[in-house]
Amino acid sequence: MFEAAELGHRIDKDSYKAQLPALREALLDAQYELKEKPAFSVVILINGVDGAGKGETVNLLNEWMDPRLIDTHAFGDSGHEEYAQPTMWRFWRALPAKGRIGILFGSWYTAPILHRATGQSGAGELQAAIDDIVRFETMLANEGVLLLKFWFHLGKKQQKARLQALEKDPRTRWRVGEADWEHFKQYDEFRAVSEEVLLRTSTGQAPWVVVDGEDERYRSLTVGQVLLQALRKRLVHPDGDGTPAMAAPLLAPLDGMRVLDRLVLDQTMSKREYSEELEKWQGRINALSRDPRLSQRAVVAVFEGNDAAGKGGTIRRITGALDARHYHVIPIAAPTEEERNQPYLWRFWRKLPKRGKFAIFDRSWYGRVLVERVEGFAPEPDWMRAYGEINDFERQLSDAGVIVIKFWLAIDADEQLKRFQAREQTGFKRFKITEEDWRNRDRWDAYREAVHDMVERTSTRDAPWVLVEANNKYHARIKVLKALCEVIEARLVG
Amino acid sequence: MFEAAELGHRIDKDSYKAQLPALREALLDAQYELKEKPAFSVVILINGVDGAGKGETVNLLNEWMDPRLIDTHAFGDSGHEEYAQPTMWRFWRALPAKGRIGILFGSWYTAPILHRATGQSGAGELQAAIDDIVRFETMLANEGVLLLKFWFHLGKKQQKARLQALEKDPRTRWRVGEADWEHFKQYDEFRAVSEEVLLRTSTGQAPWVVVDGEDERYRSLTVGQVLLQALRKRLVHPDGDGTPAMAAPLLAPLDGMRVLDRLVLDQTMSKREYSEELEKWQGRINALSRDPRLSQRAVVAVFEGNDAAGKGGTIRRITGALDARHYHVIPIAAPTEEERNQPYLWRFWRKLPKRGKFAIFDRSWYGRVLVERVEGFAPEPDWMRAYGEINDFERQLSDAGVIVIKFWLAIDADEQLKRFQAREQTGFKRFKITEEDWRNRDRWDAYREAVHDMVERTSTRDAPWVLVEANNKYHARIKVLKALCEVIEARLVG
Repeated sequence: MFEAAELGHRIDKDSYKAQLPALREALLDAQYELKEKPAFSVVILINGVDGAGKGETVNLLNEWMDPRLIDTHAFGDSGHEEYAQPTMWRFWRALPAKGRIGILFGSWYTAPILHRATGQSGAGELQAAIDDIVRFETMLANEGVLLLKFWFHLGKKQQKARLQALEKDPRTRWRVGEADWEHFKQYDEFRAVSEEVLLRTSTGQAPWVVVDGEDERYRSLTVGQVLLQALRKRLVHPDGDGTPAMAAPLLAPLDGMRVLDRLVLDQTMSKREYSEELEKWQGRINALSRDPRLSQRAVVAVFEGNDAAGKGGTIRRITGALDARHYHVIPIAAPTEEERNQPYLWRFWRKLPKRGKFAIFDRSWYGRVLVERVEGFAPEPDWMRAYGEINDFERQLSDAGVIVIKFWLAIDADEQLKRFQAREQTGFKRFKITEEDWRNRDRWDAYREAVHDMVERTSTRDAPWVLVEANNKYHARIKVLKALCEVIEARLVG
Repeated sequence: MFEAAELGHRIDKDSYKAQLPALREALLDAQYELKEKPAFSVVILINGVDGAGKGETVNLLNEWMDPRLIDTHAFGDSGHEEYAQPTMWRFWRALPAKGRIGILFGSWYTAPILHRATGQSGAGELQAAIDDIVRFETMLANEGVLLLKFWFHLGKKQQKARLQALEKDPRTRWRVGEADWEHFKQYDEFRAVSEEVLLRTSTGQAPWVVVDGEDERYRSLTVGQVLLQALRKRLVHPDGDGTPAMAAPLLAPLDGMRVLDRLVLDQTMSKREYSEELEKWQGRINALSRDPRLSQRAVVAVFEGNDAAGKGGTIRRITGALDARHYHVIPIAAPTEEERNQPYLWRFWRKLPKRGKFAIFDRSWYGRVLVERVEGFAPEPDWMRAYGEINDFERQLSDAGVIVIKFWLAIDADEQLKRFQAREQTGFKRFKITEEDWRNRDRWDAYREAVHDMVERTSTRDAPWVLVEANNKYHARIKVLKALCEVIEARLVG
């Protein structure tokens, strides 16, 4: 969930200065258009870790736009007067009227996350709170409210550095108290609870937007742009007769930095090293497949990646180490007619492994948010809701004891071209390369975008994405085998 | 929730025989139309108490329709093979393809309700299960599945009698085992848990249909008619591009028996008795309003009723017994422009009582499912989802310690006419009677229908409806005062 926000996004001063005037003008225009035709209201939630620029952003939004049309409310753990009322009472009071924008600094998420992270509440209470929130937000969507949920994120190191910097500066020292350092000590708990809550409340209608809070310019522009795009989208399609509000758009990172960009795709590995490592990890995976503890579990390994990234060869290095009775490889192609007559995830539910077995998916349910999104086979509302449905699906697998691990095999465009050409020239590999593969290449950027959103929205503690640098096949195969062994081992203990 | 299903609905043999052929033919026609244009699939859940005719209904549906187009699956607490898979796995396997009907005898509701009622699971686990169910059903709706959820109900006495009857008959004796009697001992727990689950999962898209299971003919026709209406509605508006499936219709009870019909509206009370009782209960409510335990609680009393049913006079008998600082009377009329610019429940959240106070609503949030439904001010999807939103709202009040009680003051049409005429002839009461009142009279049946659905769908243990026979004002006032005192007293203890 937080991978994409830890890439160290930045916007330099000059681009910031260059972009800002147009953004501010456009925001003002949208704001006035909303005022003139008050068809809906806008609710902006500002949540996240301390020191990630929440307060600054609230101030900025009020500075950039006409503050007379904005209602800003700050919510802490819970106030005094409010104590006597039902939990949601104070939030109902803060709802803006149609034509207006409400900024909620802290929100209905603040108390449930904090209470759970500090151990003041149990898992059941968090569950009940999430349930209330989902019902509340569904109601808002049905009532035509445009809801934007921003989560300001900082990695652990970044947060520490940020708190220290604030403390050092005499002008900001007052902002850091003992409570902040106390919270910081619980960073890991806070992060784990936040991830759970964000995953369960990131719906197609109101997805979370996780903002990298480190660079002020980056985070400010991001919030401004997401708000602008969402306003424009809704102003063009204001809410008709009872259909739910349109979702906020997913905005590409403003600095163009995607999760895949941090990978160094060219890795090296000698044939000799490869042979040694292969033997080692194949032995390990074989032993794991016969581990008695695994007989009460199962493994689902998902392989996605660029065309010609080497999924098949990698999968064969795994299956080559396993007893044939212990695994199934499930190749996923376009759905059959039977499958199209069922809900999207139906065909994958049918292919789940029995206890003690491996199910290896060569492509998977992620087709919905990759090829179906990019090629337009699925309309936006369908692939938008798929992130949540996929997370639900994988969580149910984890709850049932299934170990889920997902690999993205990444090669660059040059490497892909080389491999395509080689395939065309090798008779027995020619079947592997089709017109479609060449067409997909044209959509390289669109896929890069889709992979970024997929990793950001579906990489979870229980079902993580492993990004594999695959220009070198040896490196890729070993990295996959090693990660697979390590994740299985960790889960068998945990 | 179960009030309407305990009215003792019946269909006599002749009407049953007269209606059946047309129903069966229409069901078959709808089934074939669905097969020809397989735009969606139908999932029918058959749940409820033992002995209420679940199995018989499943057999009947297969008999009435073409069984080759029906997939019937029975689910118990959980089978053997399934144990190794995630909870929802077996239900995914049972989903029918587009163009087909799936009947699930027992469903994803069976285990969560049973486990909670028998104490095998805690409140948090039930909460998590409900959450999973709501997500799953939302996914089904988004995928265009028509979901019909039937709950077969029997009152406690009826269930006992039914089990005894089955046991007595040698041909059915085998159907009643020790487990059934064990379950019966836990009737009250089962009912309470069922009510909670049904309320939380009765959404606008997939509302529960509670079926009175006592009379075989009544329950069979009801299920058949609901299925037929739902099929027809969807066949006319098959699911377009990504918009969620249309809800099942609310069907009026087939025998015309509504919750209000069981009331004997003409009650008698002498003026002398009234005076004595009034003094007694006014004294009691006054004492309660000053009870120290109430200072940590609050009271919300809702008054709805036919026009001229005496709401105002009854409310004055309550407020007359209270210190003016202890209550607010909140008259609810059509929403102002400010209120129309907010989500529907917003204006009621603003009027909640502070701790220790009474808020008395003269008309209320139920306007959505009464006047707005009947007059068409709110489109069907909006008033359909209002039942769930209102239940959420009142549950939040109860959770915060607010005591919620709701009164429906019922008079008959003759009594209303008398009162209207009297008002017109009495100068100082003339303001009370308007054109609108005369118009509402024309919609008497539509309101009767709406009241029935309202009581069925929003009367809960924590926020019950009290139906008040109000042709005699004395009787009505005393009944209200007494119920108010008794509910408050019970809650202060509990």
